[in-house]
Amino acid sequence: MPLLQFDLIEGRNPDALQTLLDAAHRAVLKSFGVPKRDRYQIVREHKPSHMMTQDTGLNIARTQNIVVLQITTRPRTTVEKQDFYKTLCEELQTHCGIAATDVIVACVENTDADWSFGHGRAQFLTGEL
Amino acid sequence: MPLLQFDLIEGRNPDALQTLLDAAHRAVLKSFGVPKRDRYQIVREHKPSHMMTQDTGLNIARTQNIVVLQITTRPRTTVEKQDFYKTLCEELQTHCGIAATDVIVACVENTDADWSFGHGRAQFLTGEL
Amino acid sequence: MPLLQFDLIEGRNPDALQTLLDAAHRAVLKSFGVPKRDRYQIVREHKPSHMMTQDTGLNIARTQNIVVLQITTRPRTTVEKQDFYKTLCEELQTHCGIAATDVIVACVENTDADWSFGHGRAQFLTGEL
Repeated sequence: MPLLQFDLIEGRNPDALQTLLDAAHRAVLKSFGVPKRDRYQIVREHKPSHMMTQDTGLNIARTQNIVVLQITTRPRTTVEKQDFYKTLCEELQTHCGIAATDVIVACVENTDADWSFGHGRAQFLTGEL
Repeated sequence: MPLLQFDLIEGRNPDALQTLLDAAHRAVLKSFGVPKRDRYQIVREHKPSHMMTQDTGLNIARTQNIVVLQITTRPRTTVEKQDFYKTLCEELQTHCGIAATDVIVACVENTDADWSFGHGRAQFLTGEL
Repeated sequence: MPLLQFDLIEGRNPDALQTLLDAAHRAVLKSFGVPKRDRYQIVREHKPSHMMTQDTGLNIARTQNIVVLQITTRPRTTVEKQDFYKTLCEELQTHCGIAATDVIVACVENTDADWSFGHGRAQFLTGEL
């Protein structure tokens, strides 16, 4: 927790993908202050025809580098979220050459009872986390 | 925003897929009243074995045309949602030949701080949107 | 409802996949008490490079059998959720040989107006469900 789901245009090689996931995880660690191994990431790659990402009139041009990131997380403050968006873009620009114009994020919140990390237990309720 | 995620059985050609996405976007524009370029759509295609869609006892027959649509959105009224379900089915029937019996929708709501459309900013908070 | 989304490492044959989905559905029926045909399941398979599942420091080892299950559901009690996590692991261990260390679940809740199962109607609002 959080769970990060990345939707990307297909074509990255394994190294580039790993670099991207590492960069995103650093942003999670910095902005959300979670444990280092609190890392749950899923990547889905698509043909360009399968991702439509416009700009709500914000005049933002998208490229084949587009990253749509969905985050499922326990509640985070507005400050944490804003810090995450900024940090994520810095990480992706610096380490992956992905422009901040190609980074879209949507968060959905849930609560302690909504997570089980294994053993059939809700670790935020049992006191294990 | 909203973000629409479509899970479909594989096999549509690019034109058919584009027609489907256009139809769904018209329903979003009409029912949610968002800006024209507020368009974020992701399509995932599956083998039939990878989608199980029954009917909760409603006696609804499904076909290979099945559309499972997940919507992540800021809060919408019940009236808006009901209007969207109806409009979506009309659009998909008229333009794609998809029966209203093949259209399943699930919405999840979030709030202003949960969206970043680029530049590492939360545009619903900054006043840009 | 609920909608279950499974992210798995690729490689299961159709029979193994069906067994997994059946096992998960039995857990839903038992723990959430929904109608038998309240079954909505989507499977996405991935290369190992596309799923990163660590353990938040819980010292849980993951294997290629890893199951990341996302559930979108109307509100469930904490007791129901905890029962589901346990039952799911028992089912997957017994029928699929999947260890409880390989089962991660994240729930997201929505409400009555957020579901349409066909016909463009919100069946939890119309009285059909």
